[in-house]
Amino acid sequence: MPDFDVIGRSKPKIDGRAKVTGEAKYAGDLKFPNMLVGKILTSPHAHARILGIDTSEAGKLPGVKAVITHADVPELKYGISPARWDENIFCRDKVRFVGDKVAAVAALDEETVYKALRLIRVEYEELPAVLDPLTAMNDGQPQVHDEYPRNINTEIHQHFGDVDQAFKDAYHVRTDRFVGQRTYQCPIEPHSAVSMWADGKLTVYSSTQSPHYFQYYLAREFGLAMGDVRVIKPFVGGGFGGKLEPTGLEFAGAVLSRLTGRPVRMFYDRHEMFAHNRGRHRQYMELTSGVDRDGRILGLYANFIMDGGAYTSLGVASAYYAGAMLPLTYGFENFKFDMYRVYTNLPACGAQRGHGAPQPRYALECHLDMVAKDLGMDPIQIRLVNARRPNTVTPNEFRVNSCELTACLEKAREMSGWDEKKGNLPPGRGIGVAVGSFVSGAGYPIYRTDLPHAAAVVRVNEDGTSATLYTGAVDIGQGSDTVLCQMAAEAMGFTYESMKIVAADTETTPHDFGAYASRQTLMSGWAVKRAGEEVKAQLLSMAAELLDVDASTLDCRLGVIFDVASGTARLNFTEVARTFFVKRGPLVGKGSYAPPKLGGKFKGAAVGTSPAYSFATQVSEVEIDAETGEIKVAGVWDVHDCGTVINPSLLSAQVHGALFMGMGESVWEQVVFDDKGKIMNGNLGEYRLPTALDMPKVTSALVHGEEPEPAGPWGVKEVGEGATIPTMGCYANAIYDAMGIRLDSLPLSYEKVWKALKEKREQER
Amino acid sequence: MPDFDVIGRSKPKIDGRAKVTGEAKYAGDLKFPNMLVGKILTSPHAHARILGIDTSEAGKLPGVKAVITHADVPELKYGISPARWDENIFCRDKVRFVGDKVAAVAALDEETVYKALRLIRVEYEELPAVLDPLTAMNDGQPQVHDEYPRNINTEIHQHFGDVDQAFKDAYHVRTDRFVGQRTYQCPIEPHSAVSMWADGKLTVYSSTQSPHYFQYYLAREFGLAMGDVRVIKPFVGGGFGGKLEPTGLEFAGAVLSRLTGRPVRMFYDRHEMFAHNRGRHRQYMELTSGVDRDGRILGLYANFIMDGGAYTSLGVASAYYAGAMLPLTYGFENFKFDMYRVYTNLPACGAQRGHGAPQPRYALECHLDMVAKDLGMDPIQIRLVNARRPNTVTPNEFRVNSCELTACLEKAREMSGWDEKKGNLPPGRGIGVAVGSFVSGAGYPIYRTDLPHAAAVVRVNEDGTSATLYTGAVDIGQGSDTVLCQMAAEAMGFTYESMKIVAADTETTPHDFGAYASRQTLMSGWAVKRAGEEVKAQLLSMAAELLDVDASTLDCRLGVIFDVASGTARLNFTEVARTFFVKRGPLVGKGSYAPPKLGGKFKGAAVGTSPAYSFATQVSEVEIDAETGEIKVAGVWDVHDCGTVINPSLLSAQVHGALFMGMGESVWEQVVFDDKGKIMNGNLGEYRLPTALDMPKVTSALVHGEEPEPAGPWGVKEVGEGATIPTMGCYANAIYDAMGIRLDSLPLSYEKVWKALKEKREQER
Repeated sequence: MPDFDVIGRSKPKIDGRAKVTGEAKYAGDLKFPNMLVGKILTSPHAHARILGIDTSEAGKLPGVKAVITHADVPELKYGISPARWDENIFCRDKVRFVGDKVAAVAALDEETVYKALRLIRVEYEELPAVLDPLTAMNDGQPQVHDEYPRNINTEIHQHFGDVDQAFKDAYHVRTDRFVGQRTYQCPIEPHSAVSMWADGKLTVYSSTQSPHYFQYYLAREFGLAMGDVRVIKPFVGGGFGGKLEPTGLEFAGAVLSRLTGRPVRMFYDRHEMFAHNRGRHRQYMELTSGVDRDGRILGLYANFIMDGGAYTSLGVASAYYAGAMLPLTYGFENFKFDMYRVYTNLPACGAQRGHGAPQPRYALECHLDMVAKDLGMDPIQIRLVNARRPNTVTPNEFRVNSCELTACLEKAREMSGWDEKKGNLPPGRGIGVAVGSFVSGAGYPIYRTDLPHAAAVVRVNEDGTSATLYTGAVDIGQGSDTVLCQMAAEAMGFTYESMKIVAADTETTPHDFGAYASRQTLMSGWAVKRAGEEVKAQLLSMAAELLDVDASTLDCRLGVIFDVASGTARLNFTEVARTFFVKRGPLVGKGSYAPPKLGGKFKGAAVGTSPAYSFATQVSEVEIDAETGEIKVAGVWDVHDCGTVINPSLLSAQVHGALFMGMGESVWEQVVFDDKGKIMNGNLGEYRLPTALDMPKVTSALVHGEEPEPAGPWGVKEVGEGATIPTMGCYANAIYDAMGIRLDSLPLSYEKVWKALKEKREQER
Repeated sequence: MPDFDVIGRSKPKIDGRAKVTGEAKYAGDLKFPNMLVGKILTSPHAHARILGIDTSEAGKLPGVKAVITHADVPELKYGISPARWDENIFCRDKVRFVGDKVAAVAALDEETVYKALRLIRVEYEELPAVLDPLTAMNDGQPQVHDEYPRNINTEIHQHFGDVDQAFKDAYHVRTDRFVGQRTYQCPIEPHSAVSMWADGKLTVYSSTQSPHYFQYYLAREFGLAMGDVRVIKPFVGGGFGGKLEPTGLEFAGAVLSRLTGRPVRMFYDRHEMFAHNRGRHRQYMELTSGVDRDGRILGLYANFIMDGGAYTSLGVASAYYAGAMLPLTYGFENFKFDMYRVYTNLPACGAQRGHGAPQPRYALECHLDMVAKDLGMDPIQIRLVNARRPNTVTPNEFRVNSCELTACLEKAREMSGWDEKKGNLPPGRGIGVAVGSFVSGAGYPIYRTDLPHAAAVVRVNEDGTSATLYTGAVDIGQGSDTVLCQMAAEAMGFTYESMKIVAADTETTPHDFGAYASRQTLMSGWAVKRAGEEVKAQLLSMAAELLDVDASTLDCRLGVIFDVASGTARLNFTEVARTFFVKRGPLVGKGSYAPPKLGGKFKGAAVGTSPAYSFATQVSEVEIDAETGEIKVAGVWDVHDCGTVINPSLLSAQVHGALFMGMGESVWEQVVFDDKGKIMNGNLGEYRLPTALDMPKVTSALVHGEEPEPAGPWGVKEVGEGATIPTMGCYANAIYDAMGIRLDSLPLSYEKVWKALKEKREQER
């Protein structure tokens, strides 16, 4: 490992105290004079034509300041991805899911708002609804959007190499089918926004993962210059992909504020979060692989269908990632991917930690275990045979630099005691393995633009005792403010304890695309590193002038400027920075980052690829109660190749959080609808999230290659999403190992285990 | 006038909407979780020994979280001016005025705090008090501070040229005596502060004119690095000199927060503001001048005594300015100045709009009218004879560049109809004239440091449609945020409407000494201009690259980049700024300002001088009710040489505000004490501030020299304080003209007029 001073150390979170004392203000905590509260009226029907809306009674209610419908808002359709703009602020002709946006009210208080919502009369003509993507693709089914025949929102057909020939050449070909369920991100902080439209300018305080995309889309919708839209991120209580796109709260709030001339606070309650927060797609996944006698994959065919719900959201990217990330972990050459993302009359789905990738990874890891069983191979062995090597390119042209998947597998085998346990565990106990990989930021922005992906400014304060980092990168709880301050200090040769940060506000901080696709440590990190280095270069030039030496003979670490040759301390950062300020004015460094040109083919356009990829292996040991189907996780061993670590504690927190979230999705979480398309369990009582008591014992380790990842600053890669990815397949494989039952749909619920055990007993009887 | 695009125009205030909607948060509006409220227990005696303090009962009161006395705080003495550090956070041995700080309490709510204050038992031994500076200097009087014999806090003895010889050479020598009263600044927002001490770092939100000095002195008092003290200025509701120095609120609040681990909000109520806010000194002023036959001043001797109250505050500078600014307006060579600033057992005095200068100016302008009368000269004529010329140096070595005092006098004469009115007004009506001058920032900081006086950073936002100015300059209502944004836009070649501002916070904005001595337009202005020009240079270099021309052929104004020779528009700011960001990263400009080496002699050290000086003439017409003494101001004509105007509306607002404030001091305002040193009228009911209804008709004009002031960016000079200065003398001279009575003490109250008229009638009888 290279020798670092500030990075690589478990510094305390820079916002830790503000959060534990309650000093931290979230969007919903903000109060402004004359602030109104707004709420959206939503559809009670999954599919219905709007015949008329009568807001007159609602408008007469004392305390109501504005009632708006589609007649009061721009007609322009929007959507976070410009691939499909298919949403309106309010439904114009018909509603497309239970919860679709119909009207909104702003009033003096919450009680009045809710009263007013009940006074709005909407005349609906109910239409037949389609709730299942497989049905929805048939002819003669209800059409969710007239422009999309057979309800097909997105179609992807990719073929690299020749899968059919590979299957012909194969020793063994096998097809399996799996189903992934619909889940939601459930951040602890529900989404809130305060909008203020004044003097032709719109200011929005929002619970957002990306002030930039909010700014861009709000400006577009209302025909404003981007500079006339200011988006400010207060503290954010988790996002996990659900807070990346502007919601009805921002669009309706802006209009209500413009009409009333007052700030308008809008919020989703927990139930509304389930309908509006664009969680994980339900996926139907068929995988066919052909392998040689040694288990080497010759070709893979992924044939997937996704339930997109009523709108596109980030679903085009989810659909792409669902297939495109499969070849990252294994070095095969022939790959075919067919995907249909289908509209249904259910809430729209979008990005959730891991985007489209975790469920297909579950499918592939189960499938590979089944192939291994057919071949009589050990599950780790078949993965070692196929594991991707560094400096290789996937069939779909993802260029992989560093890749220590083999080391991950070997380390996980050793740590977990795999070789001793496999086949030797007592009845009801089993061990499983799965791998994963994820991007370190997307190589292309969500909408087409040539803007750099990240920028940063560092300014040393006038007395030289501290420095302020200005960044548009977004800490949503994952600790990026802390990590970026460590990086700034490292690059400057200063201390973390001297760092201050201003983030994130489109008006006062430099542009950055925000927190998604695990991009900030690498991309925002590059910008911060460059800004810090620019400070250091100026500082050393000043020091060289003071000492009458050449600047190249000096360096600075932890605030001490020293002679490189002898190691002798000469001056300190603080005094030289202060002198710089006196003699030359503000000591400011700037940096930005745009990814290199990357491959990755999708419909002729290059999308979705990343400068660098993380790799992981997970081993889980489970214990199954044969009577009840209950799954206890006895232990998890998790090994990551996530490049250079900036903050080991925060890295662990990310790994643990991701594992934990993956465990919830594996075993418990599922959004359930009734036959009218209404969510049955849209609350934290009935939607079963894991709690602290459910956390298994996790043993984590890291592996590093000989060379650091060249595409990352100091060799960093991602970890925040990648750690979620192996979990579902790993548990499914462990359950199979324990009980000999193969659960082919998520979640791997106690009920399904119980049923499968019952069926198995009946078959064996 | 040169041709400007953004400066010189009455742009709306950048914070106007926030203020009129109530959105603007002042320090007292801030709420933090777990915030306590703190109050200071003050002395009921003007002078007493503290024999003991028993806080046990107060500490037991439920809801009280901390009770502190001198035993709980650092012993280190402080004071805003390092010339005399004579204050402690709490009195250690004795109290020195009614209101002196003895202890403080932090509790859950205000009611509990006030109850707890009443439960603190302080045992005092009353000491004889001295309330008058003339008495205080006698032997055998009570000593306010043992270290300062005869209670002399500050002594100044300056002699330039030879005044005695001048008087010998003079055709006429005359001595007059005047008295100026004690007044207070009475900002509409009383002082508040919220202190948070956490993790060894202190954060203070305070109603301050200078985050920098607060930061410096808080760090010094508590032995913290400056970088560990963060001072944030929320919106501020007026300062006028009273909010320049950290108060007991910040010092006690910091300790209470450190002890309780919670944010502590402290505030002064209106009555406490009178005791703690360090208003204008009471001055005893004796002036002797010698003039030749033409009224030309050959020498001036100013012999002054100031009532400093119990502590130094900014009084050393007030004492210096009281004399040092007298020669600014008139071109005499021989000048002697003796000053004693004397401790008394009254609240300390400090800086108030115009610092020490307005009362001596009143004295000099009255005196000069009296000399003119002796010589049979017209008051304007004697001023024209003596008026300072541009590019001259005062006897005390103030270097004056631009100076249009002669033009001010001539313009005021013409506008006011002086020649027609003088001697021709009906009985009871009179007209008077006075002049003034003021610094545009002090050439030396308050404590000795080589830091530049101002710094600024401008960052163009990534889409090129807006730019953010980061400045530590402090808008306290005077409009500096607006003016500095205009300057930034002008320097960049951009529009005011595209400007955003971040100010002022020691952690997130560049260093600036803040709002005092009318410094910001010139000093902060230079820093902003340089930062803007650095942006423009980078922008034009990018444009030149895009156009393949030499950058020197291009310029940019109002967002349009054009060919200088032909005037043809080539590109616009926005697109080039955006391209810059794409190709080169953040577009950031930096600037700073340190004044040139200046003269100005005071005890061997060079202090108090300025890069540039404003000049003004005021003519007032009054109508006196001979029965009641009531003074009606029939009209005011006000002419300024304040250099290039950045924002005419805001300039007018400054002139009107200063005149208005001067009028209050001239006629009504005076702090009255009882014989125990207790303020009798410490509230806005009994301390008679002028109201909107009292505003006379004011006709203002500006004059400009041939050349702009070279020391100011674009030739700017000050206006905020200078306009206060002539008012008192002008009114006094008009009253004399109306009624033949010479009021030799301030305020020129109705009662004094009535008494003087009565005496005059009795003498004439």
